[in-house]
Amino acid sequence: MSLKQEIFEFVEKDLADIERALEANLNPYLDLVRDVASHLLFAGGKRLRPVLMVLSARVCGCNNGEEINLSTVFEYLHAATLLHDDIVDGAETRRGKIAAHKVWDPAEVVLTGDFLLSRTCTIAADTDKLPIIKVITNVTGVMSEGEIQQLLNKKRLDLSEEQYMDVIYRKTAVLISAACEVGALLADAPPEQVEALKEYGRHLGIAFQMADDLLDYVADPKVTGKAIGADLAEGKLTLPLIHALEQTGSETRPRMEKIILDENASKEDFAFVLDNIIKSGGVDYTNQKAQEHVAAAKALLDIFPDCPEKDVLAKVADFAAQRDS
Amino acid sequence: MSLKQEIFEFVEKDLADIERALEANLNPYLDLVRDVASHLLFAGGKRLRPVLMVLSARVCGCNNGEEINLSTVFEYLHAATLLHDDIVDGAETRRGKIAAHKVWDPAEVVLTGDFLLSRTCTIAADTDKLPIIKVITNVTGVMSEGEIQQLLNKKRLDLSEEQYMDVIYRKTAVLISAACEVGALLADAPPEQVEALKEYGRHLGIAFQMADDLLDYVADPKVTGKAIGADLAEGKLTLPLIHALEQTGSETRPRMEKIILDENASKEDFAFVLDNIIKSGGVDYTNQKAQEHVAAAKALLDIFPDCPEKDVLAKVADFAAQRDS
Repeated sequence: MSLKQEIFEFVEKDLADIERALEANLNPYLDLVRDVASHLLFAGGKRLRPVLMVLSARVCGCNNGEEINLSTVFEYLHAATLLHDDIVDGAETRRGKIAAHKVWDPAEVVLTGDFLLSRTCTIAADTDKLPIIKVITNVTGVMSEGEIQQLLNKKRLDLSEEQYMDVIYRKTAVLISAACEVGALLADAPPEQVEALKEYGRHLGIAFQMADDLLDYVADPKVTGKAIGADLAEGKLTLPLIHALEQTGSETRPRMEKIILDENASKEDFAFVLDNIIKSGGVDYTNQKAQEHVAAAKALLDIFPDCPEKDVLAKVADFAAQRDS
Repeated sequence: MSLKQEIFEFVEKDLADIERALEANLNPYLDLVRDVASHLLFAGGKRLRPVLMVLSARVCGCNNGEEINLSTVFEYLHAATLLHDDIVDGAETRRGKIAAHKVWDPAEVVLTGDFLLSRTCTIAADTDKLPIIKVITNVTGVMSEGEIQQLLNKKRLDLSEEQYMDVIYRKTAVLISAACEVGALLADAPPEQVEALKEYGRHLGIAFQMADDLLDYVADPKVTGKAIGADLAEGKLTLPLIHALEQTGSETRPRMEKIILDENASKEDFAFVLDNIIKSGGVDYTNQKAQEHVAAAKALLDIFPDCPEKDVLAKVADFAAQRDS
């Protein structure tokens, strides 16, 4: 059985409960809001963030059903970000479907994103737990600035690995980290467990985004539902390319840079960049860094008593850097 | 001394404190966020919402300085809405300045709006008062759907006065109502005072928006900083026009409808519509309705002990329906 199947079998019932809660909590006043939000929300997402929150709550001993309802916050917030992000990127597709802002007026999509952001805060407030509310409101701020940072970084040929790390923290890791932290907070876990799960989520999120950035170069679009080479076409520098640019000699670098800046780069151009990424060790380097974060994430689970959820959290960390979609 | 001057003199020191708090609480990580947000935030807004929150807290006996800091929430939320709203409307100007999305990439403006929304929730969460947090998160949801409703209502020639009332509640009154309610909550006021200020704010907000909608037909653009006839040009039906359409006979109505649907209506067309609004009593009717809401707002202040703040709140209600900008 594959790692993905093992994880899936363990969380299958929770996933079904999460789907129901996502439907029940959406509850807009306007049908249009439901349509726009549903287009993305129910397009076969992995529900990684809600699942991680639920597993984090369980590993800290919480199992009263509240964790399912609260976990929807992390999918809504993720969806809100994707809706605004796809407008920002002018993305054509998302989760293998045409992007929402290509179906509806972009204005409607912006405002539906706002609605999902507000649902997030409302559901958080309904817990009556201030520490949870504070984690979630903080995340929304960190993420909104991360998106802008990513926008500003486009076509910046001198983007450093450190700057890349900041972007993927803000774009991906902070939300996954918050999901795990909130799971622990909901369970009223002791501070060292809250901190361990927060850090577990951060490392996992970084590994996950690094793997995602690799997939943009080496994945099968039929499996991912995303166009390959999209980051390069947008002038978005990710770790494989940053590493390649650092390692590439003065003979090759000018052509690499020209392709990054060229919005109409050809298939041959993409093949040239990919070839150089592989030759320079950019793929191996990114893989290795992702594995380091997976190992760090797993080590943080040591303080928890042995239980099936702890094993699954370790498997999710392994999966984050191994996935094919 | 004009009503406006009387109010201004009373709140002058608070206004200065609010300006400082707006600067201090903005605190973004990126300069660009500060630039985009400041473009709108520090363009000479009236600060009606923060001022109302501060006066509401004071009329309930709160005067510890906390009210200034918390009042920034209502200006940030207002600004976030305007940033997203101006993109939605494709507005050219705002507060007499070129609209933010005409200066920056609309994507940056969307994300700056998200940042301001998140600041709103963070500052609310920092009060550690759940009832305040819940009022504010609820408002963000009501407003986001109100904006979409307004979008859907465009060029709907059959828009009823009831539907118009729902839009202006969501677009304007709910936030002003929340500002007044939160002022009372911050002061730990008894429930009947909280409810009275919430209702005061709702009536005031409705009167304020009705006056705003009238200004779109009868104001001096040099005073308002807005183009006259903008609502008509956008196909946005407001009360003066809704009333005129209801009262207008079958001879005039077809031309009125054609002009509403025509995105390139001429100055003569606008003059024709305005003439019919005046003849049908649409201006008087809207004025009268606004005055009724002013009276209702003022009546709600009766339960408060006499104090200077109570007088000023009554004056603000009068001003809401009398303003020229």
